[in-house]
Amino acid sequence: MEKLNEQAREEFVGLIAESLQQERMETFRELFLDLHPADQAEVFLELDEERAVVYEFLSPEEFAEVFDSFEPEVQKEVALQLNDQYAAEVYNNMYADDVADFLGELEPRQMTHILQAMDQEGANDVRELLAYEDKTAGAIMTKEFVSIKAADTIEAVIEHLRREGPDAEMIYYLYVVDAQDKLAGVASIRDLIVADSDRTVAEVMSSRVVSVHVEDDQEEVAQLIQKYDFLATPVIDNEGRLVGIVTVDDALDVLAEEASEDIGEISGSRGSTDVSVNAFKAARLRAPWIILLMFLGLFTAQVIGWFESTLESVVLLAAFIPMIMGSAGNTGTQSLAVSVRALATGNIERKGLWRTISREFSTGIMIGVASGIVITILLYLFYGEPLIGVIVGFSIMISLGVASVIGTLVPLVINKLKLDPAIASGPFITTLTDIISLLIYFTVASSLIQSI
Amino acid sequence: MEKLNEQAREEFVGLIAESLQQERMETFRELFLDLHPADQAEVFLELDEERAVVYEFLSPEEFAEVFDSFEPEVQKEVALQLNDQYAAEVYNNMYADDVADFLGELEPRQMTHILQAMDQEGANDVRELLAYEDKTAGAIMTKEFVSIKAADTIEAVIEHLRREGPDAEMIYYLYVVDAQDKLAGVASIRDLIVADSDRTVAEVMSSRVVSVHVEDDQEEVAQLIQKYDFLATPVIDNEGRLVGIVTVDDALDVLAEEASEDIGEISGSRGSTDVSVNAFKAARLRAPWIILLMFLGLFTAQVIGWFESTLESVVLLAAFIPMIMGSAGNTGTQSLAVSVRALATGNIERKGLWRTISREFSTGIMIGVASGIVITILLYLFYGEPLIGVIVGFSIMISLGVASVIGTLVPLVINKLKLDPAIASGPFITTLTDIISLLIYFTVASSLIQSI
Repeated sequence: MEKLNEQAREEFVGLIAESLQQERMETFRELFLDLHPADQAEVFLELDEERAVVYEFLSPEEFAEVFDSFEPEVQKEVALQLNDQYAAEVYNNMYADDVADFLGELEPRQMTHILQAMDQEGANDVRELLAYEDKTAGAIMTKEFVSIKAADTIEAVIEHLRREGPDAEMIYYLYVVDAQDKLAGVASIRDLIVADSDRTVAEVMSSRVVSVHVEDDQEEVAQLIQKYDFLATPVIDNEGRLVGIVTVDDALDVLAEEASEDIGEISGSRGSTDVSVNAFKAARLRAPWIILLMFLGLFTAQVIGWFESTLESVVLLAAFIPMIMGSAGNTGTQSLAVSVRALATGNIERKGLWRTISREFSTGIMIGVASGIVITILLYLFYGEPLIGVIVGFSIMISLGVASVIGTLVPLVINKLKLDPAIASGPFITTLTDIISLLIYFTVASSLIQSI
Repeated sequence: MEKLNEQAREEFVGLIAESLQQERMETFRELFLDLHPADQAEVFLELDEERAVVYEFLSPEEFAEVFDSFEPEVQKEVALQLNDQYAAEVYNNMYADDVADFLGELEPRQMTHILQAMDQEGANDVRELLAYEDKTAGAIMTKEFVSIKAADTIEAVIEHLRREGPDAEMIYYLYVVDAQDKLAGVASIRDLIVADSDRTVAEVMSSRVVSVHVEDDQEEVAQLIQKYDFLATPVIDNEGRLVGIVTVDDALDVLAEEASEDIGEISGSRGSTDVSVNAFKAARLRAPWIILLMFLGLFTAQVIGWFESTLESVVLLAAFIPMIMGSAGNTGTQSLAVSVRALATGNIERKGLWRTISREFSTGIMIGVASGIVITILLYLFYGEPLIGVIVGFSIMISLGVASVIGTLVPLVINKLKLDPAIASGPFITTLTDIISLLIYFTVASSLIQSI
């Protein structure tokens, strides 16, 4: 199946909608079930009142795959349209981690209601996952994995896979556990296929298994999967028992989610970088932040007030305020990006904290020296005022060095103290460097002017 | 194997270094080869002059796995230390796409030299990959995949895998091709295991295969793998022939790379967000950008000059310049993040260009109205100057609406016209909104002051 272009897609959705309006179940099923679940979900979202017929025409098992491909917001909306029995069957046919993701978005009352309606066994798996803290390995892992014993023959394992395979989320890595369910090794399907079928798992398995702990941060887990090119990584509890696995598709989702978060942080627009959020909600999320920074910005008015006499004696100084603040803000934002990215990729641990900070400070100073020299010469040529040139140039030099340290340090400190990462955002850094660079500028200006 | 903590790791590296210094090959191989290649690479990088002994103690085949785990920068450095014959054997033992990634970083002369030293077949695969444009499916795909025929029995396929499996990068998806090598279907190992071994591939395969074209952008390929939760996706040429596959680990790397790029763009620090870049190189990459923006910033000095008479009549106006510029810059950066993220996730195509822009404009206006009202009241209370309050409040309202449109539009236009995305960076947007908000502020101020 090639990807459909815009026009072909619209025609296709039209055909499906028509088959639903005319209640032609055979036609609908033929068209719809030929699609990949991710595409089924997209088509479904373009339907309106026809949705009710879809629930009739698809079994809960079939609809589970569609439901699973929705974003949590959409799942909430669709779940309200399903009758209780059909809904419970849909959840029974989903993987426990996916049900847990969805339930995590609901009110406690609704959650309990759904868990009671589900099969006992599935509901227990979901309850276990919900008990782990958000954004940990435990919260994103799947319970549907295949575990085998070291003494099993390969033939027996293949037979086991024939029976259990269809229910497992991932059968390409088989985890070997001992009598206490402790993780003892791993074998890939590739290992089994290449080996003779009468050999035992112990002979082909690798006993060096990299695993993560249930409480490990999801970002670390994703980084580990990326580093080792794994398709999945096993999750163990305090006793070393295998309790779940995190698959590579979850790692992809985590990386994408964390990248959005990083960008939200840098730009001070957390939770609203998604274009599907409506304007009012986006404004409600972002306005408090802009207004708070405006209050901080009032402080710059205060600083200018303090140095009123300096400003009055050399009025030209006012003209360069925006440029100095701008340069410091830009340098601070660059350092912020380096710092946030280093935290996200885990590079900061490999490189060491102080080496990162000192590299950024050196970089800031070098950029400051270069910019300072350029602007001093330029102002002398433009305005013929060597003193103004020196004041502005020297202020830029110091401001840029300081701004680069602030941009680097703030996210690191926030991360260390586990404070709200919103404080590490670009706008906050810029407002901070605004105030500091103004102070530097006027201090340099008033001391140089007085000393002459 | 649990992840080693800092201390255990250092001790371990110490043991390995010792075994190399004392030329105890057995001890070294026992310790080193027990590690995962990604960890072997990390340990290797902590060695100095002992590296020469590693090349002696490891076969080219063994070292290929270590070499493959290095960053391209490190590969270049290490490659210079290897003798030609050993190096050629290392490259022969790597997957073609990994060799191509490395060669892409070298001078054409070095590249030709290495390709001539390699095996004919491997070198041809590498040459093919190098011919595709950078950052396309063709450039990142692997040539080592398993293709089968629809008429094969499952037993025959398994037999084929026993022989070919160890050389393929990915054996969990088997791609079915016809006599002309055209992609006809896909079967997973799971499908084969669950089915009886005397059935044919045609009976278990799925003929709806989602594929990508060799010239598709790598980001689109990664998004597709993420959307469908694939472990790999087949790559076809203009004739529909299967020419390679892109695996999920490549998709993870692409997503991480693109996230770094997005953040580099927003912060104006492209190519230097990696902390392993040294301070001088980072400064050299970032300084031109800061200096260029400083030049643009000089324009703000010009704008202030134009409105000198207005400023002289109400000196207090100067005090609010930083705050107005700051608020506009912050709002512009938020909109920029939304826009860059929407491009990265492909959401912009689903939502439509105009809906995105109009949502951002509405958001900007709403934030502007809220901020404008707050600041008008505040300035009245603080300074007892209703006119200044109205001027500042009204200017903020307009500036924020305009800034949000600029922040959204610039990256979209850049993307559409395929210009240098650096222009879409946060610092550039901030400098632009600085100038525009100053113009708005002084225009509002001079017309309100004159009209009274």
